[in-house]
Amino acid sequence: MGNCADCMRRVFCPPKNTNVRISLPAVCFVWQIAMIVLFGVFIRYDAESDIRLWLQLKHTNNITSDIDNDFYFRYPSFQDVHVMIFVGFGFLMTFLKRYSFGGVGFNFLIGAFGLQWALLMQGWFHALDPDTGKISIGIEGLINADFCVAASLIAYGALLGKVSPVQLMVVTLFGVTLFAVEEYIILDLLHCRDAGGSMVIHCFGGYYGLTISWILYRPKLNQSKRLQGSVYHSDVFAMIGTLFLWMFWPSFNSAITDHGSGQHRTAINTYIALASSVLTTVAISSASEKRGKLDMVHIQNATLAGGVAMGTAAEFMITPYGALIVGFCTGIISTFGYLFVSPFLEKYLKIQDTCGVHNLHALPGMLGGFIGAIVAAAATEEVYSREGLIETFDFEGEFADRTVGTQGGFQAAGVCVAIAFAVVGGAAVGLILRLPIWGDPADDNCFDDEVYWEVPEDDEGILPVLEYNNHMTHKRQDISESNFSVEQS
Amino acid sequence: MGNCADCMRRVFCPPKNTNVRISLPAVCFVWQIAMIVLFGVFIRYDAESDIRLWLQLKHTNNITSDIDNDFYFRYPSFQDVHVMIFVGFGFLMTFLKRYSFGGVGFNFLIGAFGLQWALLMQGWFHALDPDTGKISIGIEGLINADFCVAASLIAYGALLGKVSPVQLMVVTLFGVTLFAVEEYIILDLLHCRDAGGSMVIHCFGGYYGLTISWILYRPKLNQSKRLQGSVYHSDVFAMIGTLFLWMFWPSFNSAITDHGSGQHRTAINTYIALASSVLTTVAISSASEKRGKLDMVHIQNATLAGGVAMGTAAEFMITPYGALIVGFCTGIISTFGYLFVSPFLEKYLKIQDTCGVHNLHALPGMLGGFIGAIVAAAATEEVYSREGLIETFDFEGEFADRTVGTQGGFQAAGVCVAIAFAVVGGAAVGLILRLPIWGDPADDNCFDDEVYWEVPEDDEGILPVLEYNNHMTHKRQDISESNFSVEQS
Amino acid sequence: MGNCADCMRRVFCPPKNTNVRISLPAVCFVWQIAMIVLFGVFIRYDAESDIRLWLQLKHTNNITSDIDNDFYFRYPSFQDVHVMIFVGFGFLMTFLKRYSFGGVGFNFLIGAFGLQWALLMQGWFHALDPDTGKISIGIEGLINADFCVAASLIAYGALLGKVSPVQLMVVTLFGVTLFAVEEYIILDLLHCRDAGGSMVIHCFGGYYGLTISWILYRPKLNQSKRLQGSVYHSDVFAMIGTLFLWMFWPSFNSAITDHGSGQHRTAINTYIALASSVLTTVAISSASEKRGKLDMVHIQNATLAGGVAMGTAAEFMITPYGALIVGFCTGIISTFGYLFVSPFLEKYLKIQDTCGVHNLHALPGMLGGFIGAIVAAAATEEVYSREGLIETFDFEGEFADRTVGTQGGFQAAGVCVAIAFAVVGGAAVGLILRLPIWGDPADDNCFDDEVYWEVPEDDEGILPVLEYNNHMTHKRQDISESNFSVEQS
Repeated sequence: MGNCADCMRRVFCPPKNTNVRISLPAVCFVWQIAMIVLFGVFIRYDAESDIRLWLQLKHTNNITSDIDNDFYFRYPSFQDVHVMIFVGFGFLMTFLKRYSFGGVGFNFLIGAFGLQWALLMQGWFHALDPDTGKISIGIEGLINADFCVAASLIAYGALLGKVSPVQLMVVTLFGVTLFAVEEYIILDLLHCRDAGGSMVIHCFGGYYGLTISWILYRPKLNQSKRLQGSVYHSDVFAMIGTLFLWMFWPSFNSAITDHGSGQHRTAINTYIALASSVLTTVAISSASEKRGKLDMVHIQNATLAGGVAMGTAAEFMITPYGALIVGFCTGIISTFGYLFVSPFLEKYLKIQDTCGVHNLHALPGMLGGFIGAIVAAAATEEVYSREGLIETFDFEGEFADRTVGTQGGFQAAGVCVAIAFAVVGGAAVGLILRLPIWGDPADDNCFDDEVYWEVPEDDEGILPVLEYNNHMTHKRQDISESNFSVEQS
Repeated sequence: MGNCADCMRRVFCPPKNTNVRISLPAVCFVWQIAMIVLFGVFIRYDAESDIRLWLQLKHTNNITSDIDNDFYFRYPSFQDVHVMIFVGFGFLMTFLKRYSFGGVGFNFLIGAFGLQWALLMQGWFHALDPDTGKISIGIEGLINADFCVAASLIAYGALLGKVSPVQLMVVTLFGVTLFAVEEYIILDLLHCRDAGGSMVIHCFGGYYGLTISWILYRPKLNQSKRLQGSVYHSDVFAMIGTLFLWMFWPSFNSAITDHGSGQHRTAINTYIALASSVLTTVAISSASEKRGKLDMVHIQNATLAGGVAMGTAAEFMITPYGALIVGFCTGIISTFGYLFVSPFLEKYLKIQDTCGVHNLHALPGMLGGFIGAIVAAAATEEVYSREGLIETFDFEGEFADRTVGTQGGFQAAGVCVAIAFAVVGGAAVGLILRLPIWGDPADDNCFDDEVYWEVPEDDEGILPVLEYNNHMTHKRQDISESNFSVEQS
Repeated sequence: MGNCADCMRRVFCPPKNTNVRISLPAVCFVWQIAMIVLFGVFIRYDAESDIRLWLQLKHTNNITSDIDNDFYFRYPSFQDVHVMIFVGFGFLMTFLKRYSFGGVGFNFLIGAFGLQWALLMQGWFHALDPDTGKISIGIEGLINADFCVAASLIAYGALLGKVSPVQLMVVTLFGVTLFAVEEYIILDLLHCRDAGGSMVIHCFGGYYGLTISWILYRPKLNQSKRLQGSVYHSDVFAMIGTLFLWMFWPSFNSAITDHGSGQHRTAINTYIALASSVLTTVAISSASEKRGKLDMVHIQNATLAGGVAMGTAAEFMITPYGALIVGFCTGIISTFGYLFVSPFLEKYLKIQDTCGVHNLHALPGMLGGFIGAIVAAAATEEVYSREGLIETFDFEGEFADRTVGTQGGFQAAGVCVAIAFAVVGGAAVGLILRLPIWGDPADDNCFDDEVYWEVPEDDEGILPVLEYNNHMTHKRQDISESNFSVEQS
């Protein structure tokens, strides 16, 4: 009967062509060569990484010691962020039983591409020398590039298992571009503060991915239902991602804040908020199941919501108990999201969100933006001191006259800009991705590494009973061959 | 026959109620709300993380640069310690074939709760401003909170698989409380040095857990014997924990030592001792098996004993070869512990020690305390210089007249205090945990994630043979359902 | 029939004696005791980790603050390197379906031994005080020891699964010794620059391992073919290694460069080159398969080639686009290596290279050496400034008159020295390892953890159907017992 149903499906819905042998290498080569050309034209070392400029800088500024190079005060945070991007996001996406290669592998691919493009895009907006027309990069640029990539990786979370690597490269190309523009508007034009990127990274990245997923809606996705869950050890792999994200989130939020008390405070606030999220996530997860059992999906994701929601406000004087309250609430909201909002989105709004990025990034990011607006608006000279207010909110130059109330308003406006860019940009990118040229998988072939990876045979029990093995191998080959013949037909 | 035996068991020993749907959320919510209230009343940023105080500090102390903030000189070590607490301890406890979720997940839960409570408890003892009644927290406070939590996580190692998450929250609540008191007595009143916590963390945590396990002795634990081992890949997961602990132990021991040569020396000594432990562990493990094969349990655990045993003495001038000797001996002792002491403890002293914390933490920690006492007593002005002795042992204020001999005596007394707190406190907590309200698992249900986690079906081979899958799924559902009916009966 | 073939094999080719119960503990104990004695005679803390010397140094050099200790500016990089050595290399070698214990476990063993021996060997060449006859160690010494060990671990990659742990200890003993000598010749006598060790680490380590593998050629290795691949989750484990290597490679290359712009630039160049490698690896991997599928072997390895190839030149002003080009080319070359060169080496040159270290280390390392030579020879005062040239290439003392052209020539000569040491040394070590006393596995027993590890029974499905389990357990015991009887015969 199963075979018969299979037959019918093949006749009426011929499988898509998932062969990316031309398109994937072509995209990788063309884009990488473009990077080389653009780097050649635009990118140079900054004054702290160029030997000639560094020696000049030392002479002119009376810097006596090489250890005053900013490298030593940013690099540890940079490496923590780097781990979050590649191990954190990568392993968090290994939870599917047969999409671990795609989860960690495509995350790696688009991360490596995205950070190059991000160095250029962010450089044009933030670090272009008007005289020479060159972009200067240093350690802060690398951190920013990682941040920029994070938004596209979040978007990948919504699309996990349903798109081809070529589509992901497109998502990243436009994702990084849109990011650089919205970041420029929010941070430079609106002069918002958003050290950990609640708005510019999480809110933008989340809604960007959700909008693309909405455009790419697959009504028959339940044909891949057999692959849509986890297995025991894939859940343990995903915990590697969760824990590295959770532990290093204080570094993420504080990586590019101002040196001094700002960076110190940001790390403390994030650490506290994350701790609080864990407890409320466990509470809601347990309370939602008949026998009080915990759900790994919640533990893997909602525990991180406190870090997302503190991305804007961690830099401010939110107070330690304020951070606890933020973690408390967002842990609850995020877990409820997994329980109720995701099914609702899928059923009524036709948004299929594989990793639940709505609950972990989009919503907590949006909340984080508004929390930041409120905390900014509530800032007082009594708490910050006059000098502290100026330093924290950077009320200098053309923004010297801004009050904290106005700042709060602009912060809130920043959230709206991020969402607008995400939805409009995501819709455009989604439409591009609907072109039938990208090699995306068929509805019954989603969440399956077999499509884009050479997957090893899985003979778990390596018993020296040769007949048995041979028998099984043949059987599996039959199956694989029949698969191939179908795909090629 | 198996079914019949099952029947009998069910009649004469009705399964415990492991439903934690009320208790776990209640505990999480109540304690987290308590944290918010107490943080609100007591906890404030310290002078290096509060913008107003930092600016004041800079003005009064002529600090010219924001990079003189202590954040930059503690934060990398803090993150290493953080990784040890959550990934190190967490993954080390994934070695059981069906308790990986509980190992890493409950470690996460009690870590996140414990560090909040630790900030308060340690703050009251060490960082309470008598004028304002407020606790100041900064990066050093976060490291100390992680340390404090470590003791409770070590205790969890002894209890792994045999207690409910609610019980673990109780273990942590009291563990952190006891820790803060014994630490105050040992470090402040006795004025011991214990940078890496051989005494206050490992010795205390180990005996605390062992005492609780002794009180909670389960005579029929072999009913869960089928789940008491590892499988191939769970042992590989555990190696993630081992390696991160091993690599970052130099950071653990040096994280809160005095800046300068002390921190430098502590890292070197720990690194050397750990290297030595690996070789003797391998030697004893191989020699103990008929065909010279290595045992993963030893490699995962006893290789770390050198780090534990150097927790006190690493700060002193123990010399590099002294560190090698410490690692050499403790590697041997710890491996012998796994071979002979653990079975002895279980059989004759009725102490069931799942992870063998006696061999990795309690005993090496106790030894480390005494090694520290000896090395302190043997300190000379020739080696340290007069100024160096004062700096290393902090012979200042009311302790200005203390000699190294006296210091050695106090160090040894510190070990006794740690053990006394562990045993008395552990016994009290154990008795509390014997109340029949905590939802702990039945003897035949230990080491099983099914009890507290929604465990995914484990259909490893995702073959497109639908009939086969359906068949198996049904079969498993039957089994699960029968399980449920048992538990509910 | 399988049984019959088995019979025949057992009769005509009796299994080797793989019992290492005497030899492994003996080697570990003797060498560890030797280390203690040698450390006792030679090794002391350096001026920054010895309390007396540090206080002296502070007084004489007017160092006002303990945070000027070099510990704070090297330690974060050291820990990144440490993670690469133990988690990076260790987990990269877990990819085989039944040699994960050996991959990560023996890596751990030889790493822990090697770094002790490296502290001595490198100390004798670089840090021996001629007056006192003592070696001073500090944080830079620890980094160098890790580097030195890396070469032996690379050699292990070529030998993975085919040698006994005792043989690996021999490989490491001689590997570290040879390394220290060639490093002394290349860095001190030829005065080459090789911060990240393209020549001294990767090129040397790779060819050293390949030569040993060539001498130990096993014509009948395909008898172990059933174990020579990966399984799904072992490939995911290997990605942990890949990603930690990839992320922390900037720290590896920059860990011991000069402070200031040099360290900053090295990290940037490496980061950029690695990103580029990922894209070309993906491109070639996809293009090489009929349906454009990616091969995990390429993703796990060739993506790292950019980091290897930048080991020498990253320190120089190679420019960001130069780094991109290096990564671009080496990603392609390395992937082609896996596709064509490895099979060629095995078939025609009789070199069995389990991990493909030729493609990841030997060849990219050699290329990296020559790239460094070219970039050095092309250095100009215009780009570096006169002072910058002197600082970058250390044109001081007896080398004050060297020109960049000459430097380029010496750099190229360095590559040749590294290869010569690797081939001659490797051949000698290989011949030693052919003695029939080391307990190496038989040809049909390679890549099998059963030989040197107590491997847990792998009953994945822990169903409460007791009869079934008992049945299977018995069956497996039968098989294991028959195995044992064979090995003992």
